[in-house]
Amino acid sequence: MENNENTAIIKIHCPDQKGIVARVTDFINLHHGNIISVDQHVDHEDNLFSMRVSWDLRGFNMPREEIRPTFQKFLGDPYQMKWTLNFTDEVPRMAIFVSKASHCLYDLLARYQSGEFKVKIPVVIGNHNILEPVARQFGIDFVHIPITAETKAEQEKKEIEILQSYKIDFVVLARYMQVLSQDFINHYPEKVINIHHSFLPAFAGARPYHAAHKRGVKIIGATSHYVTSDLDAGPIIEQDIARISHHDSVKDLIQKGKDVEKIVLSRAVKAHIERKTLVYKNRTIIFN
Amino acid sequence: MENNENTAIIKIHCPDQKGIVARVTDFINLHHGNIISVDQHVDHEDNLFSMRVSWDLRGFNMPREEIRPTFQKFLGDPYQMKWTLNFTDEVPRMAIFVSKASHCLYDLLARYQSGEFKVKIPVVIGNHNILEPVARQFGIDFVHIPITAETKAEQEKKEIEILQSYKIDFVVLARYMQVLSQDFINHYPEKVINIHHSFLPAFAGARPYHAAHKRGVKIIGATSHYVTSDLDAGPIIEQDIARISHHDSVKDLIQKGKDVEKIVLSRAVKAHIERKTLVYKNRTIIFN
Amino acid sequence: MENNENTAIIKIHCPDQKGIVARVTDFINLHHGNIISVDQHVDHEDNLFSMRVSWDLRGFNMPREEIRPTFQKFLGDPYQMKWTLNFTDEVPRMAIFVSKASHCLYDLLARYQSGEFKVKIPVVIGNHNILEPVARQFGIDFVHIPITAETKAEQEKKEIEILQSYKIDFVVLARYMQVLSQDFINHYPEKVINIHHSFLPAFAGARPYHAAHKRGVKIIGATSHYVTSDLDAGPIIEQDIARISHHDSVKDLIQKGKDVEKIVLSRAVKAHIERKTLVYKNRTIIFN
Amino acid sequence: MENNENTAIIKIHCPDQKGIVARVTDFINLHHGNIISVDQHVDHEDNLFSMRVSWDLRGFNMPREEIRPTFQKFLGDPYQMKWTLNFTDEVPRMAIFVSKASHCLYDLLARYQSGEFKVKIPVVIGNHNILEPVARQFGIDFVHIPITAETKAEQEKKEIEILQSYKIDFVVLARYMQVLSQDFINHYPEKVINIHHSFLPAFAGARPYHAAHKRGVKIIGATSHYVTSDLDAGPIIEQDIARISHHDSVKDLIQKGKDVEKIVLSRAVKAHIERKTLVYKNRTIIFN
Repeated sequence: MENNENTAIIKIHCPDQKGIVARVTDFINLHHGNIISVDQHVDHEDNLFSMRVSWDLRGFNMPREEIRPTFQKFLGDPYQMKWTLNFTDEVPRMAIFVSKASHCLYDLLARYQSGEFKVKIPVVIGNHNILEPVARQFGIDFVHIPITAETKAEQEKKEIEILQSYKIDFVVLARYMQVLSQDFINHYPEKVINIHHSFLPAFAGARPYHAAHKRGVKIIGATSHYVTSDLDAGPIIEQDIARISHHDSVKDLIQKGKDVEKIVLSRAVKAHIERKTLVYKNRTIIFN
Repeated sequence: MENNENTAIIKIHCPDQKGIVARVTDFINLHHGNIISVDQHVDHEDNLFSMRVSWDLRGFNMPREEIRPTFQKFLGDPYQMKWTLNFTDEVPRMAIFVSKASHCLYDLLARYQSGEFKVKIPVVIGNHNILEPVARQFGIDFVHIPITAETKAEQEKKEIEILQSYKIDFVVLARYMQVLSQDFINHYPEKVINIHHSFLPAFAGARPYHAAHKRGVKIIGATSHYVTSDLDAGPIIEQDIARISHHDSVKDLIQKGKDVEKIVLSRAVKAHIERKTLVYKNRTIIFN
Repeated sequence: MENNENTAIIKIHCPDQKGIVARVTDFINLHHGNIISVDQHVDHEDNLFSMRVSWDLRGFNMPREEIRPTFQKFLGDPYQMKWTLNFTDEVPRMAIFVSKASHCLYDLLARYQSGEFKVKIPVVIGNHNILEPVARQFGIDFVHIPITAETKAEQEKKEIEILQSYKIDFVVLARYMQVLSQDFINHYPEKVINIHHSFLPAFAGARPYHAAHKRGVKIIGATSHYVTSDLDAGPIIEQDIARISHHDSVKDLIQKGKDVEKIVLSRAVKAHIERKTLVYKNRTIIFN
Repeated sequence: MENNENTAIIKIHCPDQKGIVARVTDFINLHHGNIISVDQHVDHEDNLFSMRVSWDLRGFNMPREEIRPTFQKFLGDPYQMKWTLNFTDEVPRMAIFVSKASHCLYDLLARYQSGEFKVKIPVVIGNHNILEPVARQFGIDFVHIPITAETKAEQEKKEIEILQSYKIDFVVLARYMQVLSQDFINHYPEKVINIHHSFLPAFAGARPYHAAHKRGVKIIGATSHYVTSDLDAGPIIEQDIARISHHDSVKDLIQKGKDVEKIVLSRAVKAHIERKTLVYKNRTIIFN
């Protein structure tokens, strides 16, 4: 119901205080905006209020460019809010980083092509060039940036230049097998989404399916999270699991895990695109 | 966070119109109520607005007895709302109907005894007396009301008298194997919660596990719903499932199904007790 | 562990009798076959024995062409077995039927391309030509066979000719929106796999997500089954589900359902390819 | 189908070799035993064969007391098997250890009372006496053994004496909040079943729900495992999960986790009672 052309979305978090919901919805209502959805949450342990509200701009009697300063003055400042405003006709631009595994890339691109994602994907970057044909299948540019321990710093610079030239808003690591540097992450804070092939925090790091098999777990999982400087420890966006048994070898775990990985990553990407994620204290709120 | 002593809960549904969220939250805010949670939903297909809001009454500057008429005048009437107001210190009174199977009864009573349910359970009614010792174990009255085709009408009258004498607010059918008459249901509209041992609408009616086995399904389920005059067709509150295989006989399905039934029923009862369910058009909204 | 080159797989079902497992495994053992896996099941209600056994042909001292007659003589006949023998180096040939929805087709082809399926897919047939580019992306022939009520019989004949010319062993209906005739099905008994977008037997027939939304279920599902002349009533191979809420519109159900559909269909196809399915009494046994 | 009175169950593991399945099933068949079920698994990575076979002793022409020595001579020795033989009329005796939380105890005892578990539970031991009334409700002895750091060694001795006096075969820790000493575990190797309230190996140790909440996971879990000297690191028998959201406080996690804990523990206990578990290399095989 949040159509592409004329909807505004505000996400807020701030210390909890009386009256915030009323004040925010009043702001929209007084200017004749028709609220499409409100989702609100109070974390009573942390005394933190968070909210996502979207409204139809048709009939809203304030020019777009005035919304930000007005909201900041009357609500942002008094309530010490951190907040963002987006318009659904501003389609975010997404890049995908890959290595050799194709399943997540196919899943993302098939959704993209079928119109499920309201996003623009102009480029795929790979540290191997194996998946170049897949990107090409879908008519998307592919840039091969091989990386070694020695070349990492300069190659990451090249990647950032490419992202900037394509005006990329956020990056999806679709089983990209390189650890990003702190410097890279600083360029895209809360803007890099990874899929880790385990049920974090279990089996962080390399070869999680081997570790899961060795430990003899009965369920495997996958975790999509925002990338921070702490490896596999960023705010979790989405997780899911698959049941396994002693019949499953490591190879079977890898195969069954692929299905979980691609679904979990795509759900996380969709939540991000639709501005339904909010990060605080290394956790996420996922709004309805 | 909705404590037992001083919280008010309003549930609303009405035709969708501009400004309702703002008006409702304003109402609370202007009288110095501190909103604990807001959950709102618009069904755009049916143009139906629904909302649940709870607020702390400490500091709220309107006596309890004035809330209803005031809200009706300023909000209920203008917006054509159907709405209910509850206070969390008004503990609802619940009766349980049983036949022979004990698993749901044990699950409900163990939760009750451990304080999970904010409810009062003064009586269990059985058309068999097999489970009388279970009720007694927990110090709860048990009334045996045997029912045959011939005695049904009069026995149901007796049941209603018992419910009234115990001041029962709502009834939970914990694998009660009798179909309630229309007359009985009329006494407790949206106040009788059943657990059906299938994934409705599949396998409505008798012996669903036998039917499921015959059909060769790979997953079984259970469904908790409000009872209406239409058998197994009332508004669904909660469902869940369990995976099965060709190794499972009908007896295995019955056994595995029990775990799903008791968990699903208890979740539904909890949602009802916490005033998180709202029925419209034979469907439910389950608020956060 | 059932490698591609030298493994034999026998699937058996017959009336349960003493000693079958011993006799079958003896047969393999006496001829120096190394058993890779045995999975056996007795349905005591139907007195039906079923078994799948695979063994390494390296060292097996009987020529391939003698296995069938020998097994039939010493085991098939005495125990009234229905049985099949396959060799893993005989790669089955699969056709995919599609209409307009791309998600299942993409999922199947991406797995095919990555080597997950030990199968050969030479052709995709569509009653619309919208997905021709997808087939072409993967280098697979696409044949457009439009169908109307009037042309159905002759067009199905054409389809069968195409399947025969491509030497197709089995057909996967990847959200193909035409009902196959009895005649077509007779050509491919237990060889046509469908995905139905509901948790069968709930919501058989057309527009299941609309029906699910109207009924207010809390969980949706998908079902993959062998096609029989009874619409949506064939033996179920695999099912899975996704949790939904009142926030989900019909459109959301359709979207969330796609993920379940593609995963369920691919699992069913994999089980079929690996000769792990056995049909009896309109049910399936899915071996390990 | 494995009835209580006349079924034998053998569980085997040994290095994988040709012909084991045939030899074992022959052994039963030659003596006119009717095989009820066979489940076999080969771990090709570890070259380990494992098998569970059960057969009806009616008609089996070998006295019970000769089965063990005969099997050892003709199969155990030649194949270097580790194996166990059980008869279903030998009902195992189980003790339950508890602290303060009642949900697992209730779930176990309600199943016991309804006949789901083919077991005898003569005693519950608690380091607190809060749950004494629950045990008494079910007519089961309760022994209160308080434990402090200073008294632990002697109190554990007392526990072992009690277990011996009740002829206990295995122990279930139903949210027992004490760590057992190495000495205690040595008395009951692979005979102590614990439930840990996390999805191991994530959140081992104390206060896992607090840790899960802090980490911001989207799914919580529970793990039942055999207790070894390595805390929370023994062979996993069963795991399951529940989906959570940012709406859930630590208290909510604890509440939702209880449902998972009790179901997971009961499934593990059932598998153990039915001799369906086999431990090797700190992992379990769970037979059908």
